[in-house]
Amino acid sequence: MEHYKRTATCGQLSAADEGATVTLNGWVHRRRDHGGVQFIDLRDRYGLTQIVVDEDAAGEVKETAAELKFEYCIAVVGTVRSRLNPNPNIPTGEIELKAEKIEILSRCEVLPFMIDEKSDAREDLRLKFRYLDLRSFSMQRKIRLRHDVTFAVREFLNGEGFLEIETPTLIKSTPEGARDFIVPSRLHPGKVYALPQSPQLFKQILMVGGCDRYFQIARCYRDEDARGDRQLEFTQIDLEMSYVSKDDVFAVTEGMMAHIFKKTMNIDLPRPFPRLPYFEALDRFGSDKPELRFGMELQDFASFVSGSGFKVFEGVLESGGVIKALVAPGCAEYSRKQINELEETAKTYGAKGLAWMKVSDSGELDGGIAKFFAPRAQEILSSLEAGPGDLILCVADERHTACTSLGAVRLRLGRNLELIPEGTFNFCWIIDFPLFEWNSDEEKWDPAHHMFTMPQAQYLDTLEKNPGDVRADMYDLVCNGFELASGSIRVHDPEIQKRIFQIVGFSEEEAQNRFGFLLDAFRYGPPPHGGIAPGLDRLVMIMAGENSIREVIAFPKNTVGISPMDESPSPAEPDQYRELHLAAVPVQEKE
Amino acid sequence: MEHYKRTATCGQLSAADEGATVTLNGWVHRRRDHGGVQFIDLRDRYGLTQIVVDEDAAGEVKETAAELKFEYCIAVVGTVRSRLNPNPNIPTGEIELKAEKIEILSRCEVLPFMIDEKSDAREDLRLKFRYLDLRSFSMQRKIRLRHDVTFAVREFLNGEGFLEIETPTLIKSTPEGARDFIVPSRLHPGKVYALPQSPQLFKQILMVGGCDRYFQIARCYRDEDARGDRQLEFTQIDLEMSYVSKDDVFAVTEGMMAHIFKKTMNIDLPRPFPRLPYFEALDRFGSDKPELRFGMELQDFASFVSGSGFKVFEGVLESGGVIKALVAPGCAEYSRKQINELEETAKTYGAKGLAWMKVSDSGELDGGIAKFFAPRAQEILSSLEAGPGDLILCVADERHTACTSLGAVRLRLGRNLELIPEGTFNFCWIIDFPLFEWNSDEEKWDPAHHMFTMPQAQYLDTLEKNPGDVRADMYDLVCNGFELASGSIRVHDPEIQKRIFQIVGFSEEEAQNRFGFLLDAFRYGPPPHGGIAPGLDRLVMIMAGENSIREVIAFPKNTVGISPMDESPSPAEPDQYRELHLAAVPVQEKE
Repeated sequence: MEHYKRTATCGQLSAADEGATVTLNGWVHRRRDHGGVQFIDLRDRYGLTQIVVDEDAAGEVKETAAELKFEYCIAVVGTVRSRLNPNPNIPTGEIELKAEKIEILSRCEVLPFMIDEKSDAREDLRLKFRYLDLRSFSMQRKIRLRHDVTFAVREFLNGEGFLEIETPTLIKSTPEGARDFIVPSRLHPGKVYALPQSPQLFKQILMVGGCDRYFQIARCYRDEDARGDRQLEFTQIDLEMSYVSKDDVFAVTEGMMAHIFKKTMNIDLPRPFPRLPYFEALDRFGSDKPELRFGMELQDFASFVSGSGFKVFEGVLESGGVIKALVAPGCAEYSRKQINELEETAKTYGAKGLAWMKVSDSGELDGGIAKFFAPRAQEILSSLEAGPGDLILCVADERHTACTSLGAVRLRLGRNLELIPEGTFNFCWIIDFPLFEWNSDEEKWDPAHHMFTMPQAQYLDTLEKNPGDVRADMYDLVCNGFELASGSIRVHDPEIQKRIFQIVGFSEEEAQNRFGFLLDAFRYGPPPHGGIAPGLDRLVMIMAGENSIREVIAFPKNTVGISPMDESPSPAEPDQYRELHLAAVPVQEKE
Repeated sequence: MEHYKRTATCGQLSAADEGATVTLNGWVHRRRDHGGVQFIDLRDRYGLTQIVVDEDAAGEVKETAAELKFEYCIAVVGTVRSRLNPNPNIPTGEIELKAEKIEILSRCEVLPFMIDEKSDAREDLRLKFRYLDLRSFSMQRKIRLRHDVTFAVREFLNGEGFLEIETPTLIKSTPEGARDFIVPSRLHPGKVYALPQSPQLFKQILMVGGCDRYFQIARCYRDEDARGDRQLEFTQIDLEMSYVSKDDVFAVTEGMMAHIFKKTMNIDLPRPFPRLPYFEALDRFGSDKPELRFGMELQDFASFVSGSGFKVFEGVLESGGVIKALVAPGCAEYSRKQINELEETAKTYGAKGLAWMKVSDSGELDGGIAKFFAPRAQEILSSLEAGPGDLILCVADERHTACTSLGAVRLRLGRNLELIPEGTFNFCWIIDFPLFEWNSDEEKWDPAHHMFTMPQAQYLDTLEKNPGDVRADMYDLVCNGFELASGSIRVHDPEIQKRIFQIVGFSEEEAQNRFGFLLDAFRYGPPPHGGIAPGLDRLVMIMAGENSIREVIAFPKNTVGISPMDESPSPAEPDQYRELHLAAVPVQEKE
């Protein structure tokens, strides 16, 4: 009962195969009748091939062909011949297959949506019928890209002496790990495992264990409220290296990215990637994940405020704030409504308002706050490199708010004005992050990243004196405005670790409870080490030119953590709880 | 504060580097003083290098060296010079490093056990201090082997057009899935995800989705009682292919194994692997995972029973049983105690006893059941190919019990007699498994493998008539007596699927509840497909010559599912349960 097995794929045949008898297997993509001749476009992952059932074909073949509907899975035996009307748009466009036998391998019910290059079905329907969605060339390209990227990662890191090592995914749950998924143990009632938010502790343990250069394409889990483009489970390219400084981590990461882009897209990434100190990125682009595919940088406007008589700006400067300006080229024509929209964007990031003035054709400042600054128009235009027809936008606030809100306006304008080129990839490193950040609610210092990030050497003596000034040996990799990776050199010196715990008000007991086994390990000759963890989903998303990581995951959950296909999560059976010595507690309407 | 970073590894330097100034980073493996000269063996993952602090070294260097203890992590700057007494046993044995600077990177407390080639520490201590255990060359070799094996798998499958696709690990829990780990959802109180026992349903969905050739090195989970060498999480090389018969799956699997062994151990595996029908394996080796590295096959003894007067054997034959015999070469000297031990082994597998007789030096049958068979001694010896000094062992029982119990005796004898060569790898396929097996408790047919295994074509007409006779399109890959993989051609025809569900007494509702989304998918033109899933842990274990998969997993749980290092699972905090709307139920002392 073996079916006619393919001897070629649907993307393979060309004029060179003319006259050959081949068997194809695939799906009925389209079919049409034309003057008694039946045409079938047969599709598989590799391409499309036109099947023709001639008028003089055997009755059986014609009957079977007439029975075919969309997405029937079939086998066709036939002879390759050249096409009267070649289709130059597809690789097999020169030929067609004259069908001699057709076997229906399976039938297909009425489709919920067409298998098309780009489905316009709403996402939950695509996810429910993911097996149909995946058949499109568009999804197949992304699946293939993801495969190629991971293969390139492994090829490169293997060549660099990294070992891929699997770390456990049933690990210790830490009470403070608010975002841990927990997994009750059947064997040990009352006890639970947690799913890891990342292999962080284990990769550091591997360094203590002498593994020297580790990587893993690792599944990570976060039980957090669905927001934006997060998934409950996601994948990262997790690396850690012993005896390194950040330059070594940068070199490996850049080499890896270059290899990935070369092998999968034949793109040569310029190296080394530029490095931007955190505060410079904030000042110039209003973001710690700057979109560098266009300029239009934020500028400092403070020097024009003194004597302008504009009290708002003067007041902000007096209270230690900053005035940031942005020149929107050719936007002097913007309506009040358009400017209001930009202001809304700024306000989302905490700005109290968005000041503006226009540069008239004759080079005068006009409208908005122009009256305060018109006297120094020449000087301002020259300093900001603005000219006739431009719009000047300003935010006055404390530094972080002024920068990030105007940064958001910059990004919005960049998109509106189509300043961002498609298909280009601009990487940079963000460095010199603060080690601590002030928690004004609790009036204490928090770690800006995590507890194991090394302070830069020059701050070691003054750690306690000026925690806010301390810069960390920490770095982010940014591409096209997305944070792609975060990493650091780790603390391996128990004394420095203790000082950091003290600064953030972390008791020894707390430390032991959360990171006990890592701190224990550090008593046995830990090597200096550091690492990084690029997000795989996001990397492939950026490469594929998509806006959601769900587009590059075979079976994602939707935005509220549900899989419409298998309908998980599903109600627990009382038996399941009972076996785990658990009971459901009714959900209270507001406690 | 950057430390002296290595310019070479501890496994790299040779006579060719003489005179070079290099920096090494690593651990103090051994140290000794010899007439005022201090010797340090410095170790990293790559090897050992001898460091020498000469008598005339700077005071600071000598003092630091004197301070060193086992497993201090250090940096050494020095000059490579040839050794007076080369050590031919290690690659760096020709040279030593004359230390000019020594920097202590971190200190080490008193070790719980020595970092040795093969630790004799008990396993739980090794697991608790896994970071120390991992530093041994023995563990590093296994970690490296596992990396090399997975890399070779990917290299091969990538070359064969397979795409590695990640399937979800938070999936639908099925009430009957007794061995599912469940993961309560915080976002959806009362609902749970399950961790997958394998990607089975998803890989079949991928075939329906047109992915054609899929693989994944996939983490799988089973919440079952600890027994033998199981782990709660384990890894399999999961494959699935569209439009194939079992020969295609065999060819890919054999190619993959050959590539793995060639690339990692430079061993040429003979191909194709032999194929043994299930019942033949049972009859000849007493096992469906036969150890083929030695012969000593089971033989049929039935033909000598008639007329022997041995009632026990006669009775068994009359009631439809079999008599199996095994010739243990040179074991005629075995004591009663030794034979009793073999009998115990047979009884473990259900045999009621182990009959025996010896072949004397003069070729006579002697002892045990010899008196019944002495008259036909010549004929028996010739048929069994037994000779003077041999021991003949027999089990009479129904076929399965007789075969498996004598098979266990065969294996035990093979080990005792050291008939099993080390470092060789004998693969075979077991084919023609029964599709159904009789459940005598419930008096019904159960699927022998899983619901989606295809019956062989020749049984399709008589499926319902003789379920016990139906052979499946199912196969196991066996190596050195271990089941390494299991796979099958899947049912993709809804009609055949329905008939199978009916035979095993599976209602449509049950089917829908457990496999609903796969059955739904099969309504939309599923391609014929099949696959296999070799266990990675076991494969690497066999290759490494180990007896436990814990030896080839970086951070395994112990035999009762506990990780002594991170102390997981750990008691759940009431808060954790509360957030999930769960409550602990006290464990009753026997319900």
